[in-house]
Amino acid sequence: MNQQPIGVFDSGLGGLTAVKELQRILPNEDIVYFGDTGRVPYGNRSRETIQRYAEQDVAFLLEKHVKMVIAACGTVSSVANAPANLPIPFTGVVAPTAEAAAKATRNKRVGVIGTTATIRSGSYRTALRKIDASIEVFERDCPLFVPLVENGWISPEETVTKLVVERYLTPLKQAGIDTLILGCTHYPLLRPFLLETLNGGVTLIDSGRETALFAANELRKLDLCNQPNRQGSSLFYVSDSTEGFQQIAEIFLGCSIQHHVGRIDIERY
Amino acid sequence: MNQQPIGVFDSGLGGLTAVKELQRILPNEDIVYFGDTGRVPYGNRSRETIQRYAEQDVAFLLEKHVKMVIAACGTVSSVANAPANLPIPFTGVVAPTAEAAAKATRNKRVGVIGTTATIRSGSYRTALRKIDASIEVFERDCPLFVPLVENGWISPEETVTKLVVERYLTPLKQAGIDTLILGCTHYPLLRPFLLETLNGGVTLIDSGRETALFAANELRKLDLCNQPNRQGSSLFYVSDSTEGFQQIAEIFLGCSIQHHVGRIDIERY
Repeated sequence: MNQQPIGVFDSGLGGLTAVKELQRILPNEDIVYFGDTGRVPYGNRSRETIQRYAEQDVAFLLEKHVKMVIAACGTVSSVANAPANLPIPFTGVVAPTAEAAAKATRNKRVGVIGTTATIRSGSYRTALRKIDASIEVFERDCPLFVPLVENGWISPEETVTKLVVERYLTPLKQAGIDTLILGCTHYPLLRPFLLETLNGGVTLIDSGRETALFAANELRKLDLCNQPNRQGSSLFYVSDSTEGFQQIAEIFLGCSIQHHVGRIDIERY
Repeated sequence: MNQQPIGVFDSGLGGLTAVKELQRILPNEDIVYFGDTGRVPYGNRSRETIQRYAEQDVAFLLEKHVKMVIAACGTVSSVANAPANLPIPFTGVVAPTAEAAAKATRNKRVGVIGTTATIRSGSYRTALRKIDASIEVFERDCPLFVPLVENGWISPEETVTKLVVERYLTPLKQAGIDTLILGCTHYPLLRPFLLETLNGGVTLIDSGRETALFAANELRKLDLCNQPNRQGSSLFYVSDSTEGFQQIAEIFLGCSIQHHVGRIDIERY
C-alpha cells in the first residue's frame, strides 16, 4: 500500500482525458496533474526539445512525491525516452495502447492517427509490429484536430469538422482497418465524427483510457495502491496563466467541478 | 548612414511576410530575423509570458547589433510593451497598421481579424479610436487561420478553408466594413479567400506590409539607412530545430532561395 499520489503530465490539457479515466478506474487514488500550457504544443517541436521538456515535467512531479509517472502525451511517449535512473514506475501511452489495439483487431489492419510528431516517429507502428509482425499499420497525422477541439468545434452539426475528419480518415477507411488508435488525448472528443466517417465496424482505441487501465494494473501488481474506501483528490498545475483553465478543463474532464489549479515555472526544473 | 542590420522578430515564421516586404522596399538593408519556433504560438499565452518572451527576443537581436527592432508579431505588438530603456528605435505592427487603415476607410467602418490574444487585447480598436474617434471597429479572432495556413490548406479549391473564412468573416461583411486589418502575419496568405467572402469593395490592410513601410520611413527620418547601391542580405535564426525551415520559409517569403539559418537557445537571453 502506498498513499502517495499518481503523477500525470501532458504538453497541455488533453491529458485530462486520461485523468478522467484514472478517476473512474481508481477513485481512491490522489492525482497530481501537470499540463505544460506555457510550452504547448509539443507536436511540432524537435526530438531534443521534447526530451528536455519531458525531463523537466517529470522532475516537477517527482518533487510532488508521486509514486508513478504517466506521460499522458502521445508526442512525449512517441519521441522522448523515460528519464534515466527514474526511481519509480513510468509509463507512456504507446505501449498500453498498442497492446489493446493488437488484442482488438481481427483482420490485422490497424489505423493510427496522431500529431505530426507522433506519426513521424512511427512509435505505434513499431510497437504494434513488435507485438504481432503480421499486423498491417496505416498511419495518418491529423494536425487540424487539436485546434478544432480546442476551439470547441465539436458539436455534431459542425460541417468543417466533419469535412476535416473525412479528409484525414477516408484513406484509412479505404484501407479496410477494423481498429483505429486515437494516438492523441484530444481525439476522443471527436468520437462521433470518427465513427460517422468510418461508418461502423471499426473499434476505436482511446490512448488515455488504455493507459489508465494499464497504470491501474501496474499499481496493483507492485502493491502501490492507496487504501480502499477513501475518496481520492486531484491537484492540477500548469505552466502558463491559470485563467481559462476551468473552462477548458471541463471540455476534457466532462464535468464542471471546482479544481485546485496552481501555476509553476517549469523552466526551473 | 548606418550599416548595421535591421532586427525583426516574430513568435514563429509568419513574420517572414514582413521580411519579404522589407526586402522589397529596402533592398540594400541587411536583416536579422528571429523566429521563436521553440515557443510558438504566443497567441494563447498570458500577457506576462508574452512580455518575458518579447524581452528575450529583443535581447537576442541587440546582441546582433541591430539598428532598429521590428516586432513583426501581432500578439507581441498588442500585448507586450517595448523593453524599457531600449537604446534603438522599436516598432510593433499595431500603430502603423491602424494608421494605414484609418487613412483607407471611407465609411469609417473598419474590421480587424487576428489571434485570440490580439483581439482580446483590443489593441487595434484602441489605436484606431485614438486616430479617429468616429471610426467603428468590428473585431473577430480567427484561431483556425494559423493552423490552416501552416498546414498549407491555402490553394483556392480548399473547401474547408473557404468555410472557415466564411464563418469568421460573415459578421464583419454584414457590419458593412470597407476596410479590413489583417492583424496576423499569416493572414495575407488567405487573401483570395478573404476577398471572395467579402465580395469586393473592402480594402485589405496587411500588417506586415504597413509595418515595413513605416520602418523604412523611420530609418530615412533618423538617417539610419544603409549605403545605396549595395545588395542587402538576410540572416535567419530560430529557437527550435532548423529542420523544415526551408520549406515553411518558402510559403511566407514566396521564393525558394537558400537561407542561412541558425538555431539559438532563447531561454539564455
